Amino acid sequence: MRTPVPDYLEQVLGECDADDGAVADYIPELAQADPDRLAIAVSTLDGTVWTAGDAESSFSIQSISKPFTYALAIADQGLDGVLRTIDVEPSGDAFNEISLEPSSGRPRNPMINAGAIAAHALVKGDDAEARFARILALYSRLAGRDLDVDEAVFTSELDTADRNLAIAYMLRTVGTLQADAPDVVRGYTRQCSVSVTVSDLARMAAVLAAQGRGPDGTQLLEPHVSRQVLSVMATCGMYDAAGDWLTTVGIPAKSGVAGGLIGVLPGQVGIAVFSPRLDRHGNSARGVRVFERLSRDMGLHLMEVSEAARSVVRRYVEDSGAAVHEVSGDLRFVEAERVLRSLTEEPEGAGVVVLDLERVHRVNDVARRMLLEGVRRLHLDGHEVRLVDPSEALGEGRGGAGRGAGPDSGDGYAPERFEDAAAAVRG
Amino acid sequence: MRTPVPDYLEQVLGECDADDGAVADYIPELAQADPDRLAIAVSTLDGTVWTAGDAESSFSIQSISKPFTYALAIADQGLDGVLRTIDVEPSGDAFNEISLEPSSGRPRNPMINAGAIAAHALVKGDDAEARFARILALYSRLAGRDLDVDEAVFTSELDTADRNLAIAYMLRTVGTLQADAPDVVRGYTRQCSVSVTVSDLARMAAVLAAQGRGPDGTQLLEPHVSRQVLSVMATCGMYDAAGDWLTTVGIPAKSGVAGGLIGVLPGQVGIAVFSPRLDRHGNSARGVRVFERLSRDMGLHLMEVSEAARSVVRRYVEDSGAAVHEVSGDLRFVEAERVLRSLTEEPEGAGVVVLDLERVHRVNDVARRMLLEGVRRLHLDGHEVRLVDPSEALGEGRGGAGRGAGPDSGDGYAPERFEDAAAAVRG
Amino acid sequence: MRTPVPDYLEQVLGECDADDGAVADYIPELAQADPDRLAIAVSTLDGTVWTAGDAESSFSIQSISKPFTYALAIADQGLDGVLRTIDVEPSGDAFNEISLEPSSGRPRNPMINAGAIAAHALVKGDDAEARFARILALYSRLAGRDLDVDEAVFTSELDTADRNLAIAYMLRTVGTLQADAPDVVRGYTRQCSVSVTVSDLARMAAVLAAQGRGPDGTQLLEPHVSRQVLSVMATCGMYDAAGDWLTTVGIPAKSGVAGGLIGVLPGQVGIAVFSPRLDRHGNSARGVRVFERLSRDMGLHLMEVSEAARSVVRRYVEDSGAAVHEVSGDLRFVEAERVLRSLTEEPEGAGVVVLDLERVHRVNDVARRMLLEGVRRLHLDGHEVRLVDPSEALGEGRGGAGRGAGPDSGDGYAPERFEDAAAAVRG
Amino acid sequence: MRTPVPDYLEQVLGECDADDGAVADYIPELAQADPDRLAIAVSTLDGTVWTAGDAESSFSIQSISKPFTYALAIADQGLDGVLRTIDVEPSGDAFNEISLEPSSGRPRNPMINAGAIAAHALVKGDDAEARFARILALYSRLAGRDLDVDEAVFTSELDTADRNLAIAYMLRTVGTLQADAPDVVRGYTRQCSVSVTVSDLARMAAVLAAQGRGPDGTQLLEPHVSRQVLSVMATCGMYDAAGDWLTTVGIPAKSGVAGGLIGVLPGQVGIAVFSPRLDRHGNSARGVRVFERLSRDMGLHLMEVSEAARSVVRRYVEDSGAAVHEVSGDLRFVEAERVLRSLTEEPEGAGVVVLDLERVHRVNDVARRMLLEGVRRLHLDGHEVRLVDPSEALGEGRGGAGRGAGPDSGDGYAPERFEDAAAAVRG
Repeated sequence: MRTPVPDYLEQVLGECDADDGAVADYIPELAQADPDRLAIAVSTLDGTVWTAGDAESSFSIQSISKPFTYALAIADQGLDGVLRTIDVEPSGDAFNEISLEPSSGRPRNPMINAGAIAAHALVKGDDAEARFARILALYSRLAGRDLDVDEAVFTSELDTADRNLAIAYMLRTVGTLQADAPDVVRGYTRQCSVSVTVSDLARMAAVLAAQGRGPDGTQLLEPHVSRQVLSVMATCGMYDAAGDWLTTVGIPAKSGVAGGLIGVLPGQVGIAVFSPRLDRHGNSARGVRVFERLSRDMGLHLMEVSEAARSVVRRYVEDSGAAVHEVSGDLRFVEAERVLRSLTEEPEGAGVVVLDLERVHRVNDVARRMLLEGVRRLHLDGHEVRLVDPSEALGEGRGGAGRGAGPDSGDGYAPERFEDAAAAVRG
Repeated sequence: MRTPVPDYLEQVLGECDADDGAVADYIPELAQADPDRLAIAVSTLDGTVWTAGDAESSFSIQSISKPFTYALAIADQGLDGVLRTIDVEPSGDAFNEISLEPSSGRPRNPMINAGAIAAHALVKGDDAEARFARILALYSRLAGRDLDVDEAVFTSELDTADRNLAIAYMLRTVGTLQADAPDVVRGYTRQCSVSVTVSDLARMAAVLAAQGRGPDGTQLLEPHVSRQVLSVMATCGMYDAAGDWLTTVGIPAKSGVAGGLIGVLPGQVGIAVFSPRLDRHGNSARGVRVFERLSRDMGLHLMEVSEAARSVVRRYVEDSGAAVHEVSGDLRFVEAERVLRSLTEEPEGAGVVVLDLERVHRVNDVARRMLLEGVRRLHLDGHEVRLVDPSEALGEGRGGAGRGAGPDSGDGYAPERFEDAAAAVRG
Repeated sequence: MRTPVPDYLEQVLGECDADDGAVADYIPELAQADPDRLAIAVSTLDGTVWTAGDAESSFSIQSISKPFTYALAIADQGLDGVLRTIDVEPSGDAFNEISLEPSSGRPRNPMINAGAIAAHALVKGDDAEARFARILALYSRLAGRDLDVDEAVFTSELDTADRNLAIAYMLRTVGTLQADAPDVVRGYTRQCSVSVTVSDLARMAAVLAAQGRGPDGTQLLEPHVSRQVLSVMATCGMYDAAGDWLTTVGIPAKSGVAGGLIGVLPGQVGIAVFSPRLDRHGNSARGVRVFERLSRDMGLHLMEVSEAARSVVRRYVEDSGAAVHEVSGDLRFVEAERVLRSLTEEPEGAGVVVLDLERVHRVNDVARRMLLEGVRRLHLDGHEVRLVDPSEALGEGRGGAGRGAGPDSGDGYAPERFEDAAAAVRG
Repeated sequence: MRTPVPDYLEQVLGECDADDGAVADYIPELAQADPDRLAIAVSTLDGTVWTAGDAESSFSIQSISKPFTYALAIADQGLDGVLRTIDVEPSGDAFNEISLEPSSGRPRNPMINAGAIAAHALVKGDDAEARFARILALYSRLAGRDLDVDEAVFTSELDTADRNLAIAYMLRTVGTLQADAPDVVRGYTRQCSVSVTVSDLARMAAVLAAQGRGPDGTQLLEPHVSRQVLSVMATCGMYDAAGDWLTTVGIPAKSGVAGGLIGVLPGQVGIAVFSPRLDRHGNSARGVRVFERLSRDMGLHLMEVSEAARSVVRRYVEDSGAAVHEVSGDLRFVEAERVLRSLTEEPEGAGVVVLDLERVHRVNDVARRMLLEGVRRLHLDGHEVRLVDPSEALGEGRGGAGRGAGPDSGDGYAPERFEDAAAAVRG
């Protein structure tokens, strides 16, 4: 059988292929782009990439580079260090506004140029070359292949970098930038000139969707870094239309002036669209329509998470007198709470209670701890508890990415809160 | 067994019980509130409410009323009608800023007073009494009990309503408001004076988490209304700290000046905290800390959705030669895509293919359509397909809330895209 | 002989009679005004009023009332008191912007509505009636006849006073206004509805030009009040075109939405033009053109004060050996400095020095004191000084209005600086 | 006799010598200035300069250069050309704000850095060297001696020119600047580093006070250029305190960050003060106090022009029957109007009318034309008119600077309006 997924993507492209918007012309090299190209790629978290349209076309990454360099800046300086330099508030401004916070001189967020230039300068490296080399290396790791700079775009863009130079000098004035302004702008322009395809971008987006893991499971970005980047994309990724985008499309996203547009649906997919004509906000006109369509069609809106199942646990009493709690599905806080409610039906005493997790598929950290605490309490009540857990849902492989935040995130995960329970049960 | 959930909530309150912030004093009646009260309630979507602290305390709903009246305005006027009057962009302003869009005179969003007053006036009703009666009726339905006004707060607040009067007259000036300004402010003040407990608010929040359904499954708000409200809460609910809140807590939320604070985790829970002392943004100081703790602790951050399972489908060949695809877990686009990938392993021919959905728990709309299309294609390839679907995951009960948007939402769901497949299979 | 002045004014009107702009329509009663009316009046400081065009037409004073009520507020509360409530900075905003200073809540200046409403409320009076009675009495004194309210305009304007109500409530919010908002707006609207002709306005303007004196010499406004009002008109009188107006026309001015426009040339004339059609700034379109013409034509630009004469003093030695310094013209600091330079030619000794002021016409305060000091020094040098001063230019009638600032102005005139000199000479 | 003027200035300095404010430290070289220096110079229009304090101290001109370069830009490009690039509205902003007009990208005015840099670039010259050479030449002509650059200040300032570079690049972005940004900033910094004394600045200011003429009568700047510069200084010269300055001091002024401060009283004097400590607006703290004192003391406020004389003309009938109108003082529009009023007393007929201008001192253009028209009308009425005009007040030397605007100013002076009269009389 041939999978219908690419056919579906093809169909979506066909329906969004109206002829509006205009190619960015302030960078001469971009003005020469074929305005009719249109491509899409969808990458699953395990690295399968489905494409449709002119998927072989390469184009410069432009502002889509911003979230990834921001990620590297956080990795290099720690989240607090980066937050001291760049705020995370939506600015309501166009991409090229300076938008510094009056009191602190911080750029309003890392998705406007001021914040992106500041983020670029926060990347470690002895000089501009070293910084850019590390940036390119990260992009390449995320995309799964060696990327390179489109030198024609780079040269053209450097010739028209007046506004970025203005911004860089302004950042120096308020103390946000210490490095040499033309050098930083040169590096930033190089970052924007990296040449990509929709497949590259979809793979990069998929890493963010996977809490920082690559398709082979390698942790390419710390989970808390990935979370921070996605949160900022959700409120600041689409410039002055952030609220409109979040209500209508509901997918954290970032657009670039060459016509690229990525979207990340946490836990599910990375998506990239390419079409050079831009709408008045500077976002790819057809790209925006494709996303609107996908959001509606595929139920991908952040706020449209399907409701938790109503019957996650079934209790029955075996002939032996043992009370069996048969759990099924994926377990998060809310499902674990229901399992605990079911367990509360057991009166104090010395009965046998079976917790059957055979049909359970995934268990996140808090749910695991809640169940362990439930088991512990049944023990305390005098019950004999039998755990049916063939996939070790409550076992040693637990935690993983879900436990999350790295040491410099300020996050104080408290696995010990329910951990005594685990000890009690396991021990 | 006694469930550990309330113990956990009690523990969280204890750890967040620092003594900072100050009770709002611009409304005299609020200034008399006992600043030390602290309460939390968590409501599951099926109506179970866990509480801790001073859960019996009642307080005025204040700005937490805004998302719910906004919901009623959309229900009454249609989303487009409301968007023509009130924008959805974060304002970066404090709650009491006027913040009208320069070009259109629209309030920036329905969570600042200007937008909330405009939303109040959009509720249907011949006069202020009628409008407020409908608003109170909705709140009561969402909370599951008859709510009422705290007349002392109402009187005190009406005496200090200068700013809201200023806003209402300004809205008249730009044509956003046609009704009598003092009358609208009176109604709006009444709306803010509705007396609630954390349990009430948690239940109201849980309806938003359940795509508009009450604990008994009744559709109290259309799904697209609920989605719109949540999206706006995500970007505009916490006033001028929207970006900070979304990155740190990641839960759509809304606070009130009396000290209430609700949060909605789509598909999971509604949460409400109450503590009168406010931080400098006007949000409950301890309420914010509780949410930060819950978000970290329980993995409730919007961007921290757990990764899709890697092994949703298993293929094996029976002795009979039939190829069995055994699917498990919950199916969304991303999981359905994996099932389809598994089905593509079947070469063209006249073999028997079994699609076993017995271990499948939930299937959303797009996943259902994708599987049906897969089945159709296997047919076309010459296969005999046997569907094992005891819970009718692909069956007649499909659609429901997941299909979502009402007629006036402008959403053009296209179930027909994969629907031919369904017809082919079923027919 | 018939004076050519009215012919000249007639000619100016004829040349400025283009047909552009539009009558204000947000106040229904004003929308009914005959848009073609055009009138001018020029009042000299001694009360002669020259007119041309539809000089008998009466119209509502509107915002032209603002400087005069501001004057009354200063007279009532002292300049410092008023400055604590209303700033004097140009706002760059349109007339109806709220423009409160972020830190203090002060309206930016008294020429925008927020400042004008605040100024209205600063006028003494037990209630709105009493305040308005005092305002009307001042306007009448300045105009030299009993003025009255156009009740039709008043009623129409009160019906459309939403913005002013919004402003008044906002002023209450920031503590700038204590009085009842609708009451203050009612009084302010009444103030704006006073019915005037160009002759009335020209006379009122002439009082400002005469440092607060009426044509009969009565001090109707303290000189420092008049100076403050003119200064504010110079920078804030023409709304968001203040800089353009001051460079092009160079006359402190104030316009009203009914089509009136006054200008004040300090020490010279008061001018009023009336023509209902407004330009996009809300100023009378033909009125602005008339002023541009008058400024160019008549050399009335503030910065175009003619250069001081180069030969204000002539020295010669009489046959008797007496050195005569014959002074002519008007004496200010700069001319007095020249006289002193001439006096320095006298070597120490016992000669006779004649200071002949017979051809001197006017002497301001500082010049008088400088000459007296010169005389004193000649005495000290041993000279015999003979003063020829038939008009008592240095004499007892000195000072008057020129000495100026009232007790609450904070001005510390220091007549004593050169006063010892006077004592020495006179004594 | 020794003139008391310098004693007076010395006394003023002594009284204003409080110890507040702080030396600008963002330019290292300026931070080394002796903060206690204090100097004043007052220049009359004929070139006499009175000084007090550390008048020999030299310092960098800094922003005081702005009005003079603006003057050169107007001379080079015409007023309209300059207005297309730089607006004239007060910005309410600090000196270093970018303040571009949103719609046009024009800097708000030429006194903020953005406008001053744009004005610098409008000066004709093939390259930066040529432009600066012309600028320095003008400053030198105005100061009456060859000025030069303080190279240490220049170097120090160029090292800290980040903000000006930011501004220059921003101006390029909006199309306001075509030239190379670092080159323009280099030239502008050189302009700011010109070394001056208070005497130099007072002389330069005096040229503006003299409608562009030097002490020897040479027209160094066209009158309309000088008028434009003064108007802009009046509203924009003191940064964000323009309104406060104009009400309190009432003298068009400009300050520099090195501690210089000039003021221009049209037709009277140029004043310069120097004291390095700055107040929070960036103006010389003691300089501001000195100006406040001078304004109060000397009656130098723009709005405090003394009232026109009330008895400018005396009529009597000679024994011969001739009606004599004896005119005295300086004649402007307002005085000429009074003379005309006196002439209207003559009934039609063939009498003899004597117009005696022997005691008239100065006559401006419009007054001259008005009198000529009066004479013509007397002729037409049948009178024999005898003109006593020994100084040729109505004669051929008329006009001069008063006729004003050059060909590119757009001004349409209409001397012909009363000119027929002149022809009639003279012819």
